[in-house]
Amino acid sequence: MTRLLYPPTTMHLVPARVGDAIDEIDTPALLLDLDAFEKNLQKMADFTALRNIRLRPHAKTHRCPAIALQQVAMGASGVCCQTVGEAEVLVHSGIADILVTNQLLDNRKLIRLAALAKTARIALCFDSYEQIAHASRAACELAVEMCGLVEIDVGMGRGGVTPNEAPGLATAIVRAPGLRFSGIQAYQGRAQHLPLHVDRERAIAQAANHVRATKFALQRAGLGCGTVSGGGTGTFRMETQSGQWTELQCGSYIFMDGEYSAVKDEKDLPYTEFQQSLFVLATVVSATRPGGAVLNAGLKSYSTEKGLPTIYDRNDIQFVSASDEHGTLAISPETRLLPGMRLKIVPSHCDPTVNLHDTFVCIRNDRVEALWPIAARGASH
Amino acid sequence: MTRLLYPPTTMHLVPARVGDAIDEIDTPALLLDLDAFEKNLQKMADFTALRNIRLRPHAKTHRCPAIALQQVAMGASGVCCQTVGEAEVLVHSGIADILVTNQLLDNRKLIRLAALAKTARIALCFDSYEQIAHASRAACELAVEMCGLVEIDVGMGRGGVTPNEAPGLATAIVRAPGLRFSGIQAYQGRAQHLPLHVDRERAIAQAANHVRATKFALQRAGLGCGTVSGGGTGTFRMETQSGQWTELQCGSYIFMDGEYSAVKDEKDLPYTEFQQSLFVLATVVSATRPGGAVLNAGLKSYSTEKGLPTIYDRNDIQFVSASDEHGTLAISPETRLLPGMRLKIVPSHCDPTVNLHDTFVCIRNDRVEALWPIAARGASH
Repeated sequence: MTRLLYPPTTMHLVPARVGDAIDEIDTPALLLDLDAFEKNLQKMADFTALRNIRLRPHAKTHRCPAIALQQVAMGASGVCCQTVGEAEVLVHSGIADILVTNQLLDNRKLIRLAALAKTARIALCFDSYEQIAHASRAACELAVEMCGLVEIDVGMGRGGVTPNEAPGLATAIVRAPGLRFSGIQAYQGRAQHLPLHVDRERAIAQAANHVRATKFALQRAGLGCGTVSGGGTGTFRMETQSGQWTELQCGSYIFMDGEYSAVKDEKDLPYTEFQQSLFVLATVVSATRPGGAVLNAGLKSYSTEKGLPTIYDRNDIQFVSASDEHGTLAISPETRLLPGMRLKIVPSHCDPTVNLHDTFVCIRNDRVEALWPIAARGASH
Repeated sequence: MTRLLYPPTTMHLVPARVGDAIDEIDTPALLLDLDAFEKNLQKMADFTALRNIRLRPHAKTHRCPAIALQQVAMGASGVCCQTVGEAEVLVHSGIADILVTNQLLDNRKLIRLAALAKTARIALCFDSYEQIAHASRAACELAVEMCGLVEIDVGMGRGGVTPNEAPGLATAIVRAPGLRFSGIQAYQGRAQHLPLHVDRERAIAQAANHVRATKFALQRAGLGCGTVSGGGTGTFRMETQSGQWTELQCGSYIFMDGEYSAVKDEKDLPYTEFQQSLFVLATVVSATRPGGAVLNAGLKSYSTEKGLPTIYDRNDIQFVSASDEHGTLAISPETRLLPGMRLKIVPSHCDPTVNLHDTFVCIRNDRVEALWPIAARGASH
């Protein structure tokens, strides 16, 4: 029935060329402001270098080898991944140390992960005995060793076990051929965007208590706990200060987003640890009525589950709604937006926004300096 | 600073092979139930064939040449696209008639579109004189003709002009070298998901009045109005019955989604015109506490801006939250979900969900029958 002429695979239109002026970029495009991005990279690298804590940034935020390699070059001990697909892309790009901050059960996925352990240090998380048995089998089949962390629930209420359940799982990892017990995964994802500093402090203090209790339980079982991995962009100073964590998993610090800009610091001022470096560049395509305008970027260019995006540095323009390929704006009476004008959108949530695009268009001084493939975009399985 | 070994471009992991059993598919994966999909295709094809109205399905829903070609083979007069990137992928796959239901202003985009007019019939929408001038220039530069529709606002409040403004724009199209005036674009997007049948009827009656007024205004200016394009999955019977439209632009009818399942018919019963054919297949990866479980599919596998998804045919399981790569579930006391179990997710909004994936894994009788590339995924610029 179909008249398919040839099987087309996804076509990657790159929205710009290196050297283009910002006005020459095809829109919508995902922009990365290199000056802001590099300041963010440097600030976190300096913070961890000066303290007794490692940095293992989360690559789910960027899914981009060019960024992961810079993070490692600046001192990160490796990266976190959320999926095997991400780990494959990053190991094949030269990243030598990966922690999959996730449970895996599927044998084919575990075999793929074990295959990566031939060239890189691979760790993954467990919260059930069945996962340990499956991972051990895959490691043995490929004659490799993978590191295992017990994931504890430190208040996020997603995966993870209680402190008292950790020694049993840790012992199972120790005994499992092909696996090496290397510590615990203790990430409090719910704390990251709590607006009040005092609420984040309370959540991380509670998480630290869970970590302490887990270490104590492991110690009683005669088990050391080398790695305690966790922390995020909204709370990394708190995990560090507690002294309970050995490595930080921050991801969003390189980009920032609307959700983080709603977070407040200890003086109840906006959280300005890091600068906004990620934008979606869009063009006004229609402006047929006063007070309104339509942008050529919608739900396929930025995610909105954390709220509508904002327009960078323009308080006179508000998002009213977003449809598949359009953003509808309300503008102040004194503002005029003509078709053809370009605006920089600040996404409300960076990770799923990045995952909609194939390329970071990297900008410095209003010129395209680089194009970085988001090579692990869509690598969710 | 970077140690980039080679420039990796996006890696497309295909989550299944033709012939696989459904349990062998890597998750998360985008499933298309071919029996349901084909019934939906047939129902709309029959509906339009029996009435004096053409079908021009919207390809923004699927971004997939294999599906567009089937729609045309079953009688559609062509397809709608929302972006030039989509039009490029589809023309290069053999689609000969494209309407871009959108305004374009950027010269490079217009040149790309005009280049397609060398091999296909290309139409686009206008709501400003400037757009007409730019499109005319691009058509002349490539010595092609493109068709132009005046977009009128029929109550959606996005782009589009009033009926009285239409003749001026239509005249400008008539006079513009390289353009041919071919009618009006009159789509009421806001009406599609109004839950009550009577509210959708009222919205489409009002839209029909705008169409009537526009045709009258064009007639007074001595202009015919060949095409009136519009209509969607929630209202297509109403546009057809009014007699004012010449072609329907329905997109979602092939897949359906949670948003459409909330729509009611004239008897105030759920809207069952079409069957749910689109699912995200996911696996339970963690279930450490009673009453809950965690799926390995989150915001990068389905969109949630229209609400959380649901689990197909399982009222005993509810979505509680979705994060980047996880879905957190609440389950009834009598239900047990073990890690490794697979569930079929019904997305709340089909178009942006499809755009997250690279491949439709097409299923019949619980076997993979085909893999269809979502070749225009990400082709938003």
